[in-house]
Amino acid sequence: MQSQLNDMLKQAFAEATKLYQERGFQRRVGFGKKPALINVDLANAWTRPGNPFTCEKIDDEIIPGVQRLLKACRENNHPVIHVTTCYQVTDRNNPHTDMGLWHNKIPVDVVNQEDENIWAIDSRIAPIAGEQVLIKKRASSFHGTYLAGFLRAAGVDTILVTGVTASACVRTTLCDGLAEGFRTIAVRECIGDRVPGAVEWNLFDIDAKFADVESVDRCVDYLSTVKG
Amino acid sequence: MQSQLNDMLKQAFAEATKLYQERGFQRRVGFGKKPALINVDLANAWTRPGNPFTCEKIDDEIIPGVQRLLKACRENNHPVIHVTTCYQVTDRNNPHTDMGLWHNKIPVDVVNQEDENIWAIDSRIAPIAGEQVLIKKRASSFHGTYLAGFLRAAGVDTILVTGVTASACVRTTLCDGLAEGFRTIAVRECIGDRVPGAVEWNLFDIDAKFADVESVDRCVDYLSTVKG
Amino acid sequence: MQSQLNDMLKQAFAEATKLYQERGFQRRVGFGKKPALINVDLANAWTRPGNPFTCEKIDDEIIPGVQRLLKACRENNHPVIHVTTCYQVTDRNNPHTDMGLWHNKIPVDVVNQEDENIWAIDSRIAPIAGEQVLIKKRASSFHGTYLAGFLRAAGVDTILVTGVTASACVRTTLCDGLAEGFRTIAVRECIGDRVPGAVEWNLFDIDAKFADVESVDRCVDYLSTVKG
Amino acid sequence: MQSQLNDMLKQAFAEATKLYQERGFQRRVGFGKKPALINVDLANAWTRPGNPFTCEKIDDEIIPGVQRLLKACRENNHPVIHVTTCYQVTDRNNPHTDMGLWHNKIPVDVVNQEDENIWAIDSRIAPIAGEQVLIKKRASSFHGTYLAGFLRAAGVDTILVTGVTASACVRTTLCDGLAEGFRTIAVRECIGDRVPGAVEWNLFDIDAKFADVESVDRCVDYLSTVKG
Repeated sequence: MQSQLNDMLKQAFAEATKLYQERGFQRRVGFGKKPALINVDLANAWTRPGNPFTCEKIDDEIIPGVQRLLKACRENNHPVIHVTTCYQVTDRNNPHTDMGLWHNKIPVDVVNQEDENIWAIDSRIAPIAGEQVLIKKRASSFHGTYLAGFLRAAGVDTILVTGVTASACVRTTLCDGLAEGFRTIAVRECIGDRVPGAVEWNLFDIDAKFADVESVDRCVDYLSTVKG
Repeated sequence: MQSQLNDMLKQAFAEATKLYQERGFQRRVGFGKKPALINVDLANAWTRPGNPFTCEKIDDEIIPGVQRLLKACRENNHPVIHVTTCYQVTDRNNPHTDMGLWHNKIPVDVVNQEDENIWAIDSRIAPIAGEQVLIKKRASSFHGTYLAGFLRAAGVDTILVTGVTASACVRTTLCDGLAEGFRTIAVRECIGDRVPGAVEWNLFDIDAKFADVESVDRCVDYLSTVKG
Repeated sequence: MQSQLNDMLKQAFAEATKLYQERGFQRRVGFGKKPALINVDLANAWTRPGNPFTCEKIDDEIIPGVQRLLKACRENNHPVIHVTTCYQVTDRNNPHTDMGLWHNKIPVDVVNQEDENIWAIDSRIAPIAGEQVLIKKRASSFHGTYLAGFLRAAGVDTILVTGVTASACVRTTLCDGLAEGFRTIAVRECIGDRVPGAVEWNLFDIDAKFADVESVDRCVDYLSTVKG
Repeated sequence: MQSQLNDMLKQAFAEATKLYQERGFQRRVGFGKKPALINVDLANAWTRPGNPFTCEKIDDEIIPGVQRLLKACRENNHPVIHVTTCYQVTDRNNPHTDMGLWHNKIPVDVVNQEDENIWAIDSRIAPIAGEQVLIKKRASSFHGTYLAGFLRAAGVDTILVTGVTASACVRTTLCDGLAEGFRTIAVRECIGDRVPGAVEWNLFDIDAKFADVESVDRCVDYLSTVKG
């Protein structure tokens, strides 16, 4: 079904692109002068098998791509922010929980802060000294976090976003990133999800309105040539 | 093509639903005790023909549905917020514009604040005294606005969201609304877009993770029975 | 000097009060129906001797008062949020630090996240299971944190704020709390600082414009009688 | 009394400065590379006689100083943001008001959006084409507004803040500005209030922790020499 669905989505995207181009959507925001890399929820609950949050194409595409991006950032002193999600109170019957109301939609009750292994960044792309590990409570990496203030103080004007999922945390991070005044780049091969079509239709919407979807090759090249 | 696309999307949604149900997604956040209605970008640039932002199904579905919701709110003293979007500086060559960077993705340069007719709320669903008209600059009705503080101070715990587009301003408003701690309801028939499939796949993602998608009938019934 | 200063400040406050009363300032926001207690920066760096952040009147006034407030909250199931401040990167020469720009004004470089003892909540008023420990990066407990979303989702409408310092983290927390739509109460005896006059003039400004300054007795009474 | 109070405050500030210097407070954040000017609430309700919000030293110090700053900004193409405050619903008995809860502390019910004259920027320092007029609902110019996103997108790294009052809207704007990652400058002669001592103690706290207090001369010189 996936291949039939993709064919059909391609047709839909082609028709939409015609309208979007006529009307002035799908413009390019472009790469800026001072980038940062934001890896969203590439933590064990999302990258390793057997969790409700487990995603697809982690081992063969996302991790290798992010490794290349990390290398380019570290060689050129670009800031890296590793984002993960966990909660201090995961009892669904406790109304005083940092899950807010989100456990009423999705199984965030599986990521308890005390079980560090579950929300730790995947060891294959682990943070090194000087990189931020940012714990968020909601979908967006900006919502209820110090990310915007951190990036501005660091002089960052461009964010490259990877991770999971296309339909939730990656998309909201890109929407908020542009809203906060940053040039937003979605790294195509490094963004995943867990249901058929979700990566495709979300990247299509994102590219039309909120961020430029660019290949990992082009992003690595950019990170390697822009001055930090 | 629309009908073939919808059939194919239905299949994809059915497969995704199976996985989501097994894993604990697609839960219900439910209606709360104190609702507000938020109509997103139902202003002339989006509801009337001939603008780059013009959307579909406005006259036959969205406007009549919103009229019913407004009536139920006004009869029961529920707060109504009419959201629109416009800018003081729409010269794309001026780096000091309240468009931020968004004009580098979409044609927001068509909604200048001085041309009130273009961003005024559609007269068929116009605000009355005591209702808020909120001007936003970004996709989300919460981002860079006083909406969250307003709703909190008013004791609101549930937001019903209508408007356009499913893929941009409605979706980000619902994501932010849940993040801010409000029960989020997407009113199915009152949400539109302008390209094939976009309403369907966005409402699917939203219902899985960020808000309950409910019919206008059920919403009108709720607004008419809950105490304001 | 402290006593002379206080006399002079009392005269100034009396004159200001006359003007404020004539003009309609110094109104009462009042206690609401669902409170939460927020203890700001009552962590070792601020409550124990020998740190640049060490404050006054900790042992004899603030800790005993907060102990009474905590008891009342715990007996009545009111949410408690323990706020502290620390950073992952405290190297002042690293432009990619979560201190943002604040280390260019005050010595936040002394609170490194790896040295948990320095930013841990004072053991005399330590958190118990189910209470939040919130790490912030800036003065306000709301700025760049999930606090507003947490409180709203929990149905809280009133915040009682204690801690240090009156001139920085307590004041900004109260200003933001009111802005976010919460009834704001400053617990007089439980708010401290480290320089002469700062508690007095900050509580005066706060009471005139941003929160009701109330005694610990009255707050304990309120917490003990309002339903959680 | 004002002169006696000021003498006493000077003594208190001297003693506090000793402690602050020993402990590493009162550092300089400094001027950056790309400034913006933010004039807070220099609108008729605050600058003209006869309103509850009327402030002191408007005609002789603040307006002439701001005129000099505006001239320097306009000659060098630095962005200017004129901030004012008003509300769509000022009926205190209406719980659905954009005043939120603030009218329970101060007389914001006097600034109704329909009465444009009352919240219009003072004509002596009126906006020109291309400058933003930002309407806020709370004390801080950043809270619930698009200001941070606007400034980031414009590449601004430094904000110079003028206006009223020292104890409310100016102070919270500076606190939030630093928190958001901007270098914060308080323009000494261009900041006012309406009760004795308030300018002095607030500028003292601000300079110790949140912004550099600088003279209008030095700010004009900076604006005239930094490249826009």
